[in-house]
Amino acid sequence: MTIQRVAIIGLGLLGSSIARAVSQFIPEIATHGFDADAAVRERAEKLGLVGTMHETASGAVAEADLVILCVPVGAMASAAREIADALPDGAIVSDVGSSKQSVLDDLSAALPGRTIIPAHPVAGTEQSGPDAGFASLFGNRWCILTPPKDADEAAVAALSDFWTRLGARIEIMDPEHHDLVLAVTSHIPHLIAYTIVGTASDLEDVTRGEVIKYSAGGFRDFTRIAASDPTMWRDVFLHNKTAVLEMLGRFTEDLTALQRAIRSGDGETLHELFSRTRAIRRGIIEEGQDDAAPDFGRKDHGSAG
Amino acid sequence: MTIQRVAIIGLGLLGSSIARAVSQFIPEIATHGFDADAAVRERAEKLGLVGTMHETASGAVAEADLVILCVPVGAMASAAREIADALPDGAIVSDVGSSKQSVLDDLSAALPGRTIIPAHPVAGTEQSGPDAGFASLFGNRWCILTPPKDADEAAVAALSDFWTRLGARIEIMDPEHHDLVLAVTSHIPHLIAYTIVGTASDLEDVTRGEVIKYSAGGFRDFTRIAASDPTMWRDVFLHNKTAVLEMLGRFTEDLTALQRAIRSGDGETLHELFSRTRAIRRGIIEEGQDDAAPDFGRKDHGSAG
Repeated sequence: MTIQRVAIIGLGLLGSSIARAVSQFIPEIATHGFDADAAVRERAEKLGLVGTMHETASGAVAEADLVILCVPVGAMASAAREIADALPDGAIVSDVGSSKQSVLDDLSAALPGRTIIPAHPVAGTEQSGPDAGFASLFGNRWCILTPPKDADEAAVAALSDFWTRLGARIEIMDPEHHDLVLAVTSHIPHLIAYTIVGTASDLEDVTRGEVIKYSAGGFRDFTRIAASDPTMWRDVFLHNKTAVLEMLGRFTEDLTALQRAIRSGDGETLHELFSRTRAIRRGIIEEGQDDAAPDFGRKDHGSAG
Repeated sequence: MTIQRVAIIGLGLLGSSIARAVSQFIPEIATHGFDADAAVRERAEKLGLVGTMHETASGAVAEADLVILCVPVGAMASAAREIADALPDGAIVSDVGSSKQSVLDDLSAALPGRTIIPAHPVAGTEQSGPDAGFASLFGNRWCILTPPKDADEAAVAALSDFWTRLGARIEIMDPEHHDLVLAVTSHIPHLIAYTIVGTASDLEDVTRGEVIKYSAGGFRDFTRIAASDPTMWRDVFLHNKTAVLEMLGRFTEDLTALQRAIRSGDGETLHELFSRTRAIRRGIIEEGQDDAAPDFGRKDHGSAG
């Protein structure tokens, strides 16, 4: 099957990036768009994000052969119900959500008998909304597909091809395993970042001004992901509860062990861990998933500031 | 008093950055250097980091009017003892360590009656060694001085002037308060980052390859600071134990509250925190302590990768 018309439901960071990437890399595919927020629709129209903007989700998906739901995972079920009647036979329904078991369950319940292939492009920034997107967001990033066991192979191949043409690398995974992997590589890091930024801003003996001034000591790195979209992340934690709580338990055990090492003055345990963790960063840089430049290559680095 | 000759003891990231910054911004000050590691001395010689390299610490400090100890905080006492006999009368002894009460105590004990003004430039990268330094490291960063109560005002002014000319902004603080502030803005973030990277690399149901591949979901940000110098950081935790354990207790309380919110499906609590934390990042960007570009302005951002 060949995708000729894609409907993008939700035009925030991810949806608008897909729209831009399709225009740039696969201009022969027609883009149709919808967002539940009238202000976003208006802004998307102004930015010329998609070929055709629609006033309803069902209008956007009519005649589409690929529908991508780019809404928070808590809104998947209602978005799916909204398009159910207008969805053409044989159209692939996919998404970009960060939890995959819940999405597969919600879409299967709302769209029985349809071709559902959940997906998660592991890419993003801390910014939100239609202005934040850009065409190269998916370049060299992994897109994980979590098709149900009985998924149509041609549809999986078509969706893989679509993402590959947007620059992504494809991996196929069980939704349950996806949720465990992403709990550790994404969800727990976000939870920890939100927590420490919250802790720092609630202190009575250290002012908020001090936290801001001396943030270059490490804290500022955490504030980036703690500036991510609140609704999206609330939904991730509520919909990937099992894996998040499991991984959080392991993290807390490890943190408690380090706390004990600090209390007892056990420098050897600290040094052993601190040496070991460098290897992971080397792996990430070798795999092209981060910049090797110090400080992420921040602009102010190497300038007299 | 005017500083005419500075001795830099320890030529890693910080020491070599000071050497480069002095050459660039205050070339009229002569730089003398020493490092306990013969390989670092050789490398520093090859890089031309300081005007004169010495084979001993006492050789480097003889005739200096400012000595900056750029060694891990656990090595301050022995470094101070090494220079005690050769140190000229009236020379300022300072440092760049990340904990300040322990440094003040150690230097005061080893150098009774001398002019001791501990300092902490809140700047750095995850890289180590003489090659990692650069002249603009301190530009627009805060340098915190923690002089003892009876400190010579002229010496404090001279040291402030020195750091200002390297591009830094000056703050004077009690060592105890410094240690509390930095526990939250630097030490706890490092501890958490080391922990989560360790947790992720020890999992049996998620492979290290998967952690690396999908690190763009947030995890990769943590690996940067978890690649920092292990000896330096071991020493920070052992020497700022009280403040670190205090802040760690608060962080753990807050994390436990979020864990409960996830378990009970309390989306409101999550959303409220996730909205609140954005303000801190805005403050950091407005204060010029981080880059406003998405993803820290990483090089791969905005390119097709």
